[in-house]
Amino acid sequence: MNELLIDLDVHAKASLYEQIYTSVRRDIMGGRLSCGERLPSARLLAASLQVSRSTVDAAYAQLVSEGYIQAKRGSGYYVCDVTGLYDFAQGLACEEHSARQPQSVPREDKKAAGGMYNFLPGQIDAQGFAYNAWRKCAKEALLDLEAGQQLLQLGHPQGEYALRRAVCAYLYRARGVRCEPEQMIVGAGNEYLLLLLGQILGAQRTVAMESPTYLQAYHTFCRIGYTVEAVPMDADGMLPGEIPDTDVSLAYVMPSHQFPLGTVMPLRRRLELLAWAEAQPQRYIIEDDHDSEFRYKGRQIPSLQGITKLDRVIYLGTFSNSIMPSARVSYLVLPLPLLHRYQQTCAFYASTVSRMQQMTVCRFLEQGYFERHLNKMRGIYKGKHDLLLQLLKGKRWVRRIYGGNAGLHIAAELCCALTEQEVAARARALGMCVQGMSECYIAGRRKPDEMPVLLLGFGNLTEKQMREGVDILERCVEA
Amino acid sequence: MNELLIDLDVHAKASLYEQIYTSVRRDIMGGRLSCGERLPSARLLAASLQVSRSTVDAAYAQLVSEGYIQAKRGSGYYVCDVTGLYDFAQGLACEEHSARQPQSVPREDKKAAGGMYNFLPGQIDAQGFAYNAWRKCAKEALLDLEAGQQLLQLGHPQGEYALRRAVCAYLYRARGVRCEPEQMIVGAGNEYLLLLLGQILGAQRTVAMESPTYLQAYHTFCRIGYTVEAVPMDADGMLPGEIPDTDVSLAYVMPSHQFPLGTVMPLRRRLELLAWAEAQPQRYIIEDDHDSEFRYKGRQIPSLQGITKLDRVIYLGTFSNSIMPSARVSYLVLPLPLLHRYQQTCAFYASTVSRMQQMTVCRFLEQGYFERHLNKMRGIYKGKHDLLLQLLKGKRWVRRIYGGNAGLHIAAELCCALTEQEVAARARALGMCVQGMSECYIAGRRKPDEMPVLLLGFGNLTEKQMREGVDILERCVEA
Repeated sequence: MNELLIDLDVHAKASLYEQIYTSVRRDIMGGRLSCGERLPSARLLAASLQVSRSTVDAAYAQLVSEGYIQAKRGSGYYVCDVTGLYDFAQGLACEEHSARQPQSVPREDKKAAGGMYNFLPGQIDAQGFAYNAWRKCAKEALLDLEAGQQLLQLGHPQGEYALRRAVCAYLYRARGVRCEPEQMIVGAGNEYLLLLLGQILGAQRTVAMESPTYLQAYHTFCRIGYTVEAVPMDADGMLPGEIPDTDVSLAYVMPSHQFPLGTVMPLRRRLELLAWAEAQPQRYIIEDDHDSEFRYKGRQIPSLQGITKLDRVIYLGTFSNSIMPSARVSYLVLPLPLLHRYQQTCAFYASTVSRMQQMTVCRFLEQGYFERHLNKMRGIYKGKHDLLLQLLKGKRWVRRIYGGNAGLHIAAELCCALTEQEVAARARALGMCVQGMSECYIAGRRKPDEMPVLLLGFGNLTEKQMREGVDILERCVEA
Repeated sequence: MNELLIDLDVHAKASLYEQIYTSVRRDIMGGRLSCGERLPSARLLAASLQVSRSTVDAAYAQLVSEGYIQAKRGSGYYVCDVTGLYDFAQGLACEEHSARQPQSVPREDKKAAGGMYNFLPGQIDAQGFAYNAWRKCAKEALLDLEAGQQLLQLGHPQGEYALRRAVCAYLYRARGVRCEPEQMIVGAGNEYLLLLLGQILGAQRTVAMESPTYLQAYHTFCRIGYTVEAVPMDADGMLPGEIPDTDVSLAYVMPSHQFPLGTVMPLRRRLELLAWAEAQPQRYIIEDDHDSEFRYKGRQIPSLQGITKLDRVIYLGTFSNSIMPSARVSYLVLPLPLLHRYQQTCAFYASTVSRMQQMTVCRFLEQGYFERHLNKMRGIYKGKHDLLLQLLKGKRWVRRIYGGNAGLHIAAELCCALTEQEVAARARALGMCVQGMSECYIAGRRKPDEMPVLLLGFGNLTEKQMREGVDILERCVEA
C-alpha cells in the first residue's frame, strides 16, 4: 500500500474533495503511483487528512469513474493502467487538429495489474520472452565493456557497425530488404528516427498518410511542421491516384501490415505507389515495417524496399514488437541520396542508443537467439490470435473482424446501439482496457455514425484473460 | 589485420590510386574499419588488387596526410581516431554558416589506439571506471526485468519515476537544483533533449549563445530552425547587456564551467542574466551544466537554477562525463509552465532510454556508487589536470592557460608562427589528436590573426601519454 502525500489547504478555492482528487490524479499521471499499486482505504485516508469519510469517498468515486483507479471487492482501491488516458486528461494540442483530436495512441504500456484486462495494442507476451538468452548477451556485453574500455566513449553516430551488419543480414533474409550497414541509422525508437528523418528531408514537406494510421507518426509529423494529407484507401491500402497533385512529396505507408486495419498492400498497388514516387524528383515513400515479423497464415510478405531498385523507399523498422518495447532500438535504412544528406547535415548528432544496449542486441542477433525467439513467439501469438478469433466469431454482436492473420491485435466491428466511446468506457469500468478505432483516425475522417470498432491486442493476455475479456465486452454491448 | 573490400574499376574515370583512397576512407568514416585496426601492408594489398606497389603507396600516403591512418615504424598502417574529422571531409552544411564552418566538435570519441595521443575534450578515464559496481547494478536490473515482467513494455515517457527521484535528490545535494521528479525528462543525450525542448518552446525562436561555445548545441539549434545570435562575453561570461533587443527569447549558457573557455559566471552576472529573462514573458535561460561534477579548487559552484525562484531557467545535465559518454542518459528540468506545455504537446513521444539502462543508472545512484565514483574520479582527474598544467607551465611557447581547475580539458594559448590548423595538422601527423579553439566559434567570430589556442583534454591519458604529447607539441611549434 502506498502512502499518499496530499497537502490540503482549507483556505483554497478548490474544495477538499477536488484537492484530493487532483493530488491523486497528478501522482498517477506523473508516475509516482504506478499501475497496480493499492491506495489507502477511504477510512484511513479520511482519518489521516482529518476530513470526513464522504469527502474521500467522493474523490475516489470520481477517480474510479474517470478510469484512474478501480475498486476491487473486499480488497480496496488500485491504480489503473493509465495507458491512453494521459492526453485525454490533459488535452493533446496537435496544432492542426486540436479540436477534433480527442486522444492520442497509447504510450504508457504497462502490464495490466491483477484483475485488469489489457487489450491495448502494442503489448508483447512477457512470459515467453527469452530471458536467459537476453541475460547471457547482456552479460557478455558487460564483459566487452570492461575488456575493450573504448566502449565507454561515444560510438559511431549511426550505431555500432557490427549491429548494423547483423540487422542488415536479418532484414535481407527475413524481409528482402537490400541495404548495406553504411545506409542504416540505429536510433532510440521510431519517433526519434522520424524526427531525424524530418531534418534530413528538410522542413515544410507535405506527407500523405492513410487514415486510420499509426498516430504516433502522425503527431511526430505535425510536431516537425509537416502538413499531413489523409489519403483515401481501399482494401489494398493507400490509393496513389488520390494523393493530391499539389505539394505532397512523401507517402507514409505500412505495406506489409497496415496499422490498425491489417491491410496487406498487393504488388500491383505497391508498383503504383512506386510509380507515384518516381514521377517527381524528391518524392519518397516511408515504409514502416513495424510488426511484419508475426504472420500466421500464408507466406511472409517481403518489404516494399526490396522489390525496387529505385532510391525512393526509406525503410523504418523496430525491435519493439520482436524483442521488447522498452528496449528502444529502431533502425532506418536511407537511400543513398538521403544518406549523403544525413552525412552532410545530421551526422553530428551522437547515437541515441547506449553502446551496451547495442552490443546486447547485436549478440542476440549474431548468436541466433533472435530468430529462434521469433519462431517461438510466432507460435505463441498464433495460438492467442486463433483463440481470440474463435471466441469472437460466434457472437451476434460482432459484425466483422479484420486485420487478422498477422500482428499483435485484431480489429472487431461491433453491432450495437452504443458509441465506441461508450463501449470503451463501460469496458474500462469493468477492468478492461481497449482502444477504439476512432482514436487512430486523422482528425475527423471517420463518420460519426459508423459502428464501433475496437482494436483488441492479445500480445500479453492469458487464455483466461481473453475469455473473461470477451465476456466483459459482451456484457458491455448487450446491457 | 582487416581485409579490405575494394572493387577497382579500370574503366572508371577516377584513377586506381583515387579509388583505393576513396574506398578505405569510406570504410573508416562508415565505421567498417575501426580506430586501431591494422591495414594490410602496401605490398600485400598491391598484390591482391593486382596494381603496382606505388599506386597503393600513394593512396596510403594521402590517407596518412589527411589523418585517416597512421604509419608505425616496422609495424604497418593503422586506422586513426577519426574524431572531429567526419564533417571536415564531408563539409558540414549548417545552412546559416556553411561557408565559414570548417569543422564540427568531436563526435566519435573512440579511445586512442596504442601509440596515439588523444587530447580531444570529452574523453573520460576508462581505467578508473567503476566496472564492478556498474556490472552489479546492470545484473540487478536484469533480474528486475525478469521478476517484474512489465519492464519489457514501454515505461513512462519522462523516464522511470525512481530514476527521476534519484537524479533530483543528487542534483539538490550536489548542485543546489530545486526540482520535483515530475519536472524532469530523461532522454538519450543532450542533443535529443534540445530537439525536444525546441518543440516545447516552439519554432522560430532566436537564441543567444556565447562564442566560442559547445557547437553540438549550436548545430542542434540551427537544425531546428532557430536563429542564433553570438553575444559578446567578457571574463565573467555572456554580457546580458549585449543581447540584441530584437527577438532573442532564449539564452544558452554554461554558468558553472563554460565550454570551452572554462569561465565561471559570478553571482552578479547571473543575477543580470536572470533580470534579462524576467524583463519579458516567454524568455528562458537554458543552463547546460555539462561537467560541473569535476572541480579541483575552491568550493563547488551551485547551479543557476537553484538560486532563483523564477520559472525562467531550464536545466540540462548529463551522465556522459560522470558515468560514461556511451550511456546516453541526460536529463532536462522544466519550469512548470513549460512542463505543462510538454504534457500538452510532446508527451506522446516514448522515452528514448531503455528501461534496463534507466534501472541500471537508478541503482548506481540509489546505492551510493555514483557519488563514490565521482569522488574517486575527481581525485584522478585532479592528478591529471595538475600534471598537464605543470608540464605546460614552464614552456616558452605557451603564452597563457585558461579554463583550469575544473572539467576534463584545459585551453592553452600558444606563442608561435603557425596557425592553429597548422599546429593541429603537424600534431596529427605525429599521432596526436587535438582540437583547436577556432572549431568552437560560431561562424567567423574569431579573428584570424589571433594566436593558436588548443583544447587539451586529459580525461583518458596516462602520465606517459601526457608527457610525450607535450613533447610532440613542442616539436610541432618549435620546428
